[in-house]
Amino acid sequence: MLLAALSAASMSSSPPGLAQAQAQPQTPPQPTARLLIVGGAEDRQQDRVILRKFIEYAGGPMARIRLITAASSVPEAVGHSYRQAFGDLGAQNFEVLPLQERENAFEPQVLEQLQLADGVFMSGGDQSRLMATLWETPALHALHQAFHFRNCCVGGTSAGAAVMSRHMIAQGPALLRPSKDAVATDIGLGLLPSAIVDQHFSERRRLARLLSVLAQRPDLLGVGIDEDTALVVERGQAIEVIGQGTVTLLDPSRAVSNFDDLQANEQIELLGVMMHTLPAGHRYTPQVRPPRHWPPGLHAALQRLVRPGPVRA
Amino acid sequence: MLLAALSAASMSSSPPGLAQAQAQPQTPPQPTARLLIVGGAEDRQQDRVILRKFIEYAGGPMARIRLITAASSVPEAVGHSYRQAFGDLGAQNFEVLPLQERENAFEPQVLEQLQLADGVFMSGGDQSRLMATLWETPALHALHQAFHFRNCCVGGTSAGAAVMSRHMIAQGPALLRPSKDAVATDIGLGLLPSAIVDQHFSERRRLARLLSVLAQRPDLLGVGIDEDTALVVERGQAIEVIGQGTVTLLDPSRAVSNFDDLQANEQIELLGVMMHTLPAGHRYTPQVRPPRHWPPGLHAALQRLVRPGPVRA
Repeated sequence: MLLAALSAASMSSSPPGLAQAQAQPQTPPQPTARLLIVGGAEDRQQDRVILRKFIEYAGGPMARIRLITAASSVPEAVGHSYRQAFGDLGAQNFEVLPLQERENAFEPQVLEQLQLADGVFMSGGDQSRLMATLWETPALHALHQAFHFRNCCVGGTSAGAAVMSRHMIAQGPALLRPSKDAVATDIGLGLLPSAIVDQHFSERRRLARLLSVLAQRPDLLGVGIDEDTALVVERGQAIEVIGQGTVTLLDPSRAVSNFDDLQANEQIELLGVMMHTLPAGHRYTPQVRPPRHWPPGLHAALQRLVRPGPVRA
Repeated sequence: MLLAALSAASMSSSPPGLAQAQAQPQTPPQPTARLLIVGGAEDRQQDRVILRKFIEYAGGPMARIRLITAASSVPEAVGHSYRQAFGDLGAQNFEVLPLQERENAFEPQVLEQLQLADGVFMSGGDQSRLMATLWETPALHALHQAFHFRNCCVGGTSAGAAVMSRHMIAQGPALLRPSKDAVATDIGLGLLPSAIVDQHFSERRRLARLLSVLAQRPDLLGVGIDEDTALVVERGQAIEVIGQGTVTLLDPSRAVSNFDDLQANEQIELLGVMMHTLPAGHRYTPQVRPPRHWPPGLHAALQRLVRPGPVRA
């Protein structure tokens, strides 16, 4: 009931001024829902470009920012670190969600926090632990509602980035070459439906790992995100790259592989993967007419990347 | 005069039997000229798949195989190692060319050895040292003549592989990301005119280094060759991959970059590079009608790869 009422309210078109007039400090709903997908190791002590942007996209200093540490094995330390970083950057309403075990994901106060959040940030750790905590829980539903209906900015770093896609890389070594079955995939949050994210991409040399997944799943767009770098996906609109490094897109939509003919760990013949390297500072708006100089396929790939997925119940 | 006579003879169509009837042990000219481009660290002690193939492509156990160690700072040790390896594999006519200094590249006995060779193999070391020894010398002309007119198999590993192309990577670190001006290029032997080779490719994580070059030279096809792996280019015919690893082709012919707008060391935006990973054991014949399932652009890229360059005088 609470969820239904909240989402209905969020879908009304009340002007920002009304919301601000309410009792507790609030920020207006953001006009654009954004995913802020960080490749890990984002700066939390110096310029903090990425966390600064996250606050801005959540609505500014008054935004209700909630941190999920469920991926981490040292949640207290992680929570402390982000509390410090967000506090230093002027965030006035930051809280670490009490969401460490799966049973927490059913507790009303957690759900209410998620439903009211302007920004939800997921820390690093182990993406499988995070999914085990959230999968098929009311908390996941609340997070989807917040993103889809209230334009809550959802950020995540490292493990928190991996879970963004519907299919995620659960684990696997940094392979030398694309090889069959060397990477384990699992289901993710589904906020980024047509892609699969790998993080620490250039630093941990994960090209072959991501290609190995794409040979099996050529319906997905591979997204490799460097450390201290974020891919910002504006739902239905645009993407931008912020931070220090590069986002690498690997588009296998016209690729051909011998994946089905191979035994486990055999090297993969993979023909025709389109690659794009997008450095920080660049923005791409696939919803407008593409620039003439763009290579074939880029526009379509970006369109797929910004397309929102279904709301997860 | 000697060179002209030799190349004229090699272009006649005398049957193999005639050549074998001559006084000294000879092999018939090979019907196909091949480059055997090794990504370094080829097995010289166990199965020696690549060196075995080199002997076969040079014409078998009686083939006149000559080794160039000019890239190496320890030519005696390198020569000894290959003498042992080729000897164990049954090569009856192996010699290390006395070609260590630039003046050697003008000596008649060196030229004669090159003109008579069925296989010439270039060791690893420093590609700039090798080019300084050979560039604009009669020895380079003799090597070109041997390859172009007598179908001599030309092999090279590591530095000996880098020099195969007309433009070669002289030096540069294994970059994390494609970056402007971080890689130094120089002129190579020109046996592979439309490509640029990088070796130790997967092992030394050289993707970003090769992409950095291609952003500047999108007219070239990037060829990344793994260790203990060789790309065999049959002139005008086909390519095959042998050994243990993978050859990665990077085709920037339709790519777009912001290279010209950047300062040194800035990250490169590079859109639309087509990538193909070709594992050992695969063969591609671009001169016949391409298989229907091939992705767009692969056929044209392979055609460029097998196209011979001009004879270097």
